[in-house]
Amino acid sequence: MIALASRRSDDTLLLPQPYLLFLGDTTEPGYAKTAFGLRDWAGDKCIGELALPAATVTAGLPRMTPAEAKARGARALVIGVANSGGVLSPTWHASLVDALEAGLDIVSGMHVRLAEVPGLAQRAARLGRRLIDIRTPPADIPIATGRKRSGKRLLTVGTDCALGKKYTALALARAFAEQGVDADFRATGQTGIMIAGEGVPMDAVVADFAAGAAEMLSPDAAPDHWDVVEGQGSLLHPSYAGVSLALLHGSQPDVFVVCDQPGRTEMLGTAGYGIPSAEEVIAATLLLGRRTNPAIRCGGLSYDTSRMSEADAFALMARDSERLGLPVADPIRGGAAFDRLVESCLG
Amino acid sequence: MIALASRRSDDTLLLPQPYLLFLGDTTEPGYAKTAFGLRDWAGDKCIGELALPAATVTAGLPRMTPAEAKARGARALVIGVANSGGVLSPTWHASLVDALEAGLDIVSGMHVRLAEVPGLAQRAARLGRRLIDIRTPPADIPIATGRKRSGKRLLTVGTDCALGKKYTALALARAFAEQGVDADFRATGQTGIMIAGEGVPMDAVVADFAAGAAEMLSPDAAPDHWDVVEGQGSLLHPSYAGVSLALLHGSQPDVFVVCDQPGRTEMLGTAGYGIPSAEEVIAATLLLGRRTNPAIRCGGLSYDTSRMSEADAFALMARDSERLGLPVADPIRGGAAFDRLVESCLG
Repeated sequence: MIALASRRSDDTLLLPQPYLLFLGDTTEPGYAKTAFGLRDWAGDKCIGELALPAATVTAGLPRMTPAEAKARGARALVIGVANSGGVLSPTWHASLVDALEAGLDIVSGMHVRLAEVPGLAQRAARLGRRLIDIRTPPADIPIATGRKRSGKRLLTVGTDCALGKKYTALALARAFAEQGVDADFRATGQTGIMIAGEGVPMDAVVADFAAGAAEMLSPDAAPDHWDVVEGQGSLLHPSYAGVSLALLHGSQPDVFVVCDQPGRTEMLGTAGYGIPSAEEVIAATLLLGRRTNPAIRCGGLSYDTSRMSEADAFALMARDSERLGLPVADPIRGGAAFDRLVESCLG
Repeated sequence: MIALASRRSDDTLLLPQPYLLFLGDTTEPGYAKTAFGLRDWAGDKCIGELALPAATVTAGLPRMTPAEAKARGARALVIGVANSGGVLSPTWHASLVDALEAGLDIVSGMHVRLAEVPGLAQRAARLGRRLIDIRTPPADIPIATGRKRSGKRLLTVGTDCALGKKYTALALARAFAEQGVDADFRATGQTGIMIAGEGVPMDAVVADFAAGAAEMLSPDAAPDHWDVVEGQGSLLHPSYAGVSLALLHGSQPDVFVVCDQPGRTEMLGTAGYGIPSAEEVIAATLLLGRRTNPAIRCGGLSYDTSRMSEADAFALMARDSERLGLPVADPIRGGAAFDRLVESCLG
């Protein structure tokens, strides 16, 4: 069971931090996105990394054994990598056992559950250690009520999947905090939950409870507190729009930021669906978001321009900002455009 | 596991019919809605009913023991009632065991699983009988792709929950068939699945797979075949809109019918949310439904006018039909208005 914001008072439900990052025998950097995300956004919670001899990928952290990590304060080994099958490779099993023996819990965001590793559950039980599967949602999610909650909320939404909704939410939450604004990043996916140390895996919640999960995720807060919620999918994605809408309704955001990747032409995993325009996403988000927050507004757009030259990226963002009448920024490139986006969101 | 339309060739996955309806010790007719629905819409699949002495509710079918029902061809005992706790009452257990001993499977739509009845799973295993929990979704639902499928589809949508979406879909499917149109009712809720003998419990599917479940539910079909899909929730319901949107995208309907209950002022289970107008529901359904079927159109409206006088009901439906430029009918009252609705849907 994963910790939820509303249960912060119960420390036992939070993920055990800091972490030792496990990189397995990974040679493909694309499979280590979780480890890189943890290094970049929760670096203060990462003591070191552990890899098998065959690994060529590194997060750039000190290499250490589970026992060394434990001695330096680590509380859990985190599976920071995937592989092509999305499974817990048999070559990793000895390292997982080592971690338990050293006194670390294990945290995994894989589809396969840790308890399916032969013998691991018994070993953990004997040692009093926990096996924490991030993809397992809490058992006690209520049906959403739509009740207006106190505090302010921002949700990142998308023209598609996998184009920077988590990154944008993390960057905005960090920028808010740097301006002295009381803000929390609220995680809705595996990597985000590992970074935040709590959250709810929206994609694993039973459909009837998805909006209720989003309501739990950002509970009542002080009037000037911001929850910056990691979005999922897209209202116009034929596979995942239901998740996106439940998250929109349950988050009842005051402000949303549209994430896009200029140049992408087809929605991920679909049969030839084009990417909707920013205008279409804004219109749909306003229409549907008004249901639980009549004051919802678009704060601006966040572009992933990593495949463009800097000159092209800034020229495009300036043009689109002019056309839409909204700030358009790439949080990785930052600059004045990103400052304007932050300012627009805070209102 | 519940049968899905796409696996019709595998007869073992369909619900075992005909049924013996179990009424328990129910004295509250409101708790016997499932039994009444089965009697009204699958009467040819109901051999008889079984009730405990304390029961005062009846579906009007011949009373018989499980052994008598088995002798007349019954294949399953169906739990046709609920109770205030939504549980399988201990007073029912002996009847469930009797059914297994008589050679019947047991079908339940309760939240509590049949296997949680002490000893029932072992008894069923020993006798080679099945315990079928309708709320357990299939394990192999794929992620939706948005691929356009052959055949025609109609989806009932709502201004709220529980105002006739199942009833309307059943009535339309029956009316289509009476006109010689090849049509199937596609069930998405517990009672509907019992009636159809197959379907998918949309509310129990994990959110990421909800649209995929809707795609499975209405597979490729002959060009002039109609799937009439039972809707769930409402795109504007703060608790369930995600389910509704996944069902809309996955069903890719050519036609939708908006279900409403005139006089209802507040959405079920919410904190003071008003019922949206038909115009709002039509606009949202067109905007979002176009994503997977650009040709989507509204066929008309279906009203539950059971709380109105006949004169008031027909006057209201005539006025609203004039205002909206669409047929408005109460399928229970039928008449020329319902004929116009059927005609409009078939296009």
